[in-house]
Amino acid sequence: MTEQLDAVLARLDANLDAARERLFALLRIPSISAPPAHAGDCRAAAEWLRAEFAGMGFTATVHETGGHPALVAHHPGPGGAVPHVLLYGHYDVQPADPLELWTSAPFEPVLVDGPHGPRIRARGAVDDKGQVMMWVEALRAWHTVAGWPPVAVTVLIEGEEEVGSDNLDAFVAANRELLRSDVAIISDTGMWDIDTPAITTRLRGLVYAQIDVKAAARDLHSGLFGGSALNPINLLTSILGALRTPDGRVTMDGFYDGVADLPPTLAAQWQGLDFSEAEFLGSVGLSVPAGEPGRTPLERMWARPTCDINGIWGGYMGAGSKTVIPSEAHAKLSFRLVPGQDPARIAGLLRAFVAARLPADAQATVTILGEAPGMEVDLDNPAIAAATDILAEEFGRAAVLCGSGGSIPVVESLRRLLGIDTLLMGFGLDDDQVHSPDEKFELRCFHRGMRSHARLLDRLARRT
Amino acid sequence: MTEQLDAVLARLDANLDAARERLFALLRIPSISAPPAHAGDCRAAAEWLRAEFAGMGFTATVHETGGHPALVAHHPGPGGAVPHVLLYGHYDVQPADPLELWTSAPFEPVLVDGPHGPRIRARGAVDDKGQVMMWVEALRAWHTVAGWPPVAVTVLIEGEEEVGSDNLDAFVAANRELLRSDVAIISDTGMWDIDTPAITTRLRGLVYAQIDVKAAARDLHSGLFGGSALNPINLLTSILGALRTPDGRVTMDGFYDGVADLPPTLAAQWQGLDFSEAEFLGSVGLSVPAGEPGRTPLERMWARPTCDINGIWGGYMGAGSKTVIPSEAHAKLSFRLVPGQDPARIAGLLRAFVAARLPADAQATVTILGEAPGMEVDLDNPAIAAATDILAEEFGRAAVLCGSGGSIPVVESLRRLLGIDTLLMGFGLDDDQVHSPDEKFELRCFHRGMRSHARLLDRLARRT
Repeated sequence: MTEQLDAVLARLDANLDAARERLFALLRIPSISAPPAHAGDCRAAAEWLRAEFAGMGFTATVHETGGHPALVAHHPGPGGAVPHVLLYGHYDVQPADPLELWTSAPFEPVLVDGPHGPRIRARGAVDDKGQVMMWVEALRAWHTVAGWPPVAVTVLIEGEEEVGSDNLDAFVAANRELLRSDVAIISDTGMWDIDTPAITTRLRGLVYAQIDVKAAARDLHSGLFGGSALNPINLLTSILGALRTPDGRVTMDGFYDGVADLPPTLAAQWQGLDFSEAEFLGSVGLSVPAGEPGRTPLERMWARPTCDINGIWGGYMGAGSKTVIPSEAHAKLSFRLVPGQDPARIAGLLRAFVAARLPADAQATVTILGEAPGMEVDLDNPAIAAATDILAEEFGRAAVLCGSGGSIPVVESLRRLLGIDTLLMGFGLDDDQVHSPDEKFELRCFHRGMRSHARLLDRLARRT
Repeated sequence: MTEQLDAVLARLDANLDAARERLFALLRIPSISAPPAHAGDCRAAAEWLRAEFAGMGFTATVHETGGHPALVAHHPGPGGAVPHVLLYGHYDVQPADPLELWTSAPFEPVLVDGPHGPRIRARGAVDDKGQVMMWVEALRAWHTVAGWPPVAVTVLIEGEEEVGSDNLDAFVAANRELLRSDVAIISDTGMWDIDTPAITTRLRGLVYAQIDVKAAARDLHSGLFGGSALNPINLLTSILGALRTPDGRVTMDGFYDGVADLPPTLAAQWQGLDFSEAEFLGSVGLSVPAGEPGRTPLERMWARPTCDINGIWGGYMGAGSKTVIPSEAHAKLSFRLVPGQDPARIAGLLRAFVAARLPADAQATVTILGEAPGMEVDLDNPAIAAATDILAEEFGRAAVLCGSGGSIPVVESLRRLLGIDTLLMGFGLDDDQVHSPDEKFELRCFHRGMRSHARLLDRLARRT
């Protein structure tokens, strides 16, 4: 270990409170990407980050996209430093509703005690502002101690990850030179547990769709028209109810085409992991796995496709009763995909499934709100070896090579558009309540994540 | 026809504008019974009506119930006048949402031109404020011309008809003496068409229920938990989707027990009616009957039970996408019932249907928000003969004896609790958009309805 790294790590330890305060400032910006009303907050978050990088000697620019802006920052590092790393993250967050289920306001971050010591509670605490600020603080410490990062660094922080990164591919394709680099590093995933680091090597993909069904030209009285007029909620529930078997298999013809069983070696490795589905489900008040039978819990989470209805609405939702047959009904649903399933093909299957069940009097539109294929990371990517080493140094134990049930579309985009592989080294925990009320990030994970990123930059520089 | 009746009818003709203005005043009170926020408006409507009857020499009192208050007014008529009629109506109205679909504000009544001349547009214009004010104006004219109504009159106007009349039975049972009468007259139904009056002799019943499904203790990330955690929207749609066959039959075991085929005579009479389902559905932008096959349109509307989901909500309903597995999902649904189906038994079938499809991790509550059995009115009720005569006089053509797809629970309550039959003589039209945006009432129907009620009171007095 170099003396400089010692000084960098010491500085991160000494300045943890200040780092946490900077994260709080970012968390106070309600940069929710879904509702248009928060577009200004998304831009404010991008500008806040731009100023941070400018203060560390980076050239930093907020770039317009078709949607929320993207921040790109660059530092050449010491002369001719290699490799050139691309650090990716996102400043946008999920909506905070239902607000009434939050213990404290989602955009007023607080430090509260937990079983692992202090934790940061706020929307975006871990997804992804807290994880972005880990490497921002690592770069800051390197800047203070050495005057520059040990390797050339390009930063890409987008604002539409939580709504499908619709404009990311076009932006990356249009800025290949600006983003040219050797390897991408992303912290938007989790650890195995509070003491065991993890590197994610497998990601599920996604197709996110909205279905809008319309029937009569106006709302109708269910007494007068019941039994004669098509009810769009009846229709929508019959379509959605037919999408899955009770044990969770998707019924669309061809949905499982190309879905391979797990390679025996990977299956064996996952079997060897200490994972208790009872604890996993118990932590959220559940006890019975809802997924496909005959699959291991980790296989269902990391290597099997799913269908979940994420939202549904129509008709009368107020107090008491209203005997109405509404004129329309709506649902949002998503399919988690695995390698071998083409998102465009799955979207087509959904359109066909809906169309085949549509009576003459009904109109239905299926709008695709997000698409990403499932991914497997190249294990020969040298950054994975580097991360494995430094994580062992930081945590005193080997990192688990795991999968992720969620999708990070940018991994596939960076491979396809920039030709680079990605290291997914994240520091969240399963109980961080990502996308839920009371999202949190353990201060200990934030701290060790900073230290790990500082070590990784050093290790990557010395590998060459 | 008596000279007094001539004078009463002439007075109604001469004072139509004033009568319409009085109706507008009542329509301006947003007495929506479902949301608690409008409780004060419901009471205001009851008080407004109390003052009207007090001004016509009635003893009028606003009575407390378990919910919105009920108005009872009484006039003995001329000494020893018989029969004693009970006039029932309701001052409460349906919610006005979706507000954006109204051409004018729902509680700012306007007179607009239509194919049948001027029409009154407002929530409650026909259901039921406009139809109540028809007989209020008939009583007013009799009061002015004769000093009293020609028969003894008791008035009962409740404020919970649109939310299932939950407190009506208890109120009637506790006030049998106050409400003692020989026959009930209700105007909350429709005419056959703008020129043809109708007497409704058959009503469908209702079971209105809300289903609340809960699973995880909090909202979950569909990437992390998808394939492992129970999704309450998936579950609710699979339950509701299984409730009906695509052709509209209800699948609950025993649902059709006790449902008799139409008596051949009634079937023949209905077959003889000039009813175009193509026009009926075409008027709301539909073309294909959604109900049971092998049944005539009027049979499906008046004599067959149905199941309609009236509202559904859960998860993310905002703009864009949110990859959430919500912790709960909700639906409101109603069954239209026919004679032979016990509402309590049907409610039990629904509870059993839901319970049988509930995985270990899910909780579901089924709350019954309204119940009423299907009804057939006794055709020997002398008031029906009287109404048939005076409607022929007023309209110059015979009244149609028809059914109604909607339920009027009070008819069964009055028979059970007071031992009296009901005459259903209404003046609405199929296109009045009851329970929908732009609800309206034809001024011509309002006018002829007043005249018909004035005639009926006269005829009932002279029948004895």
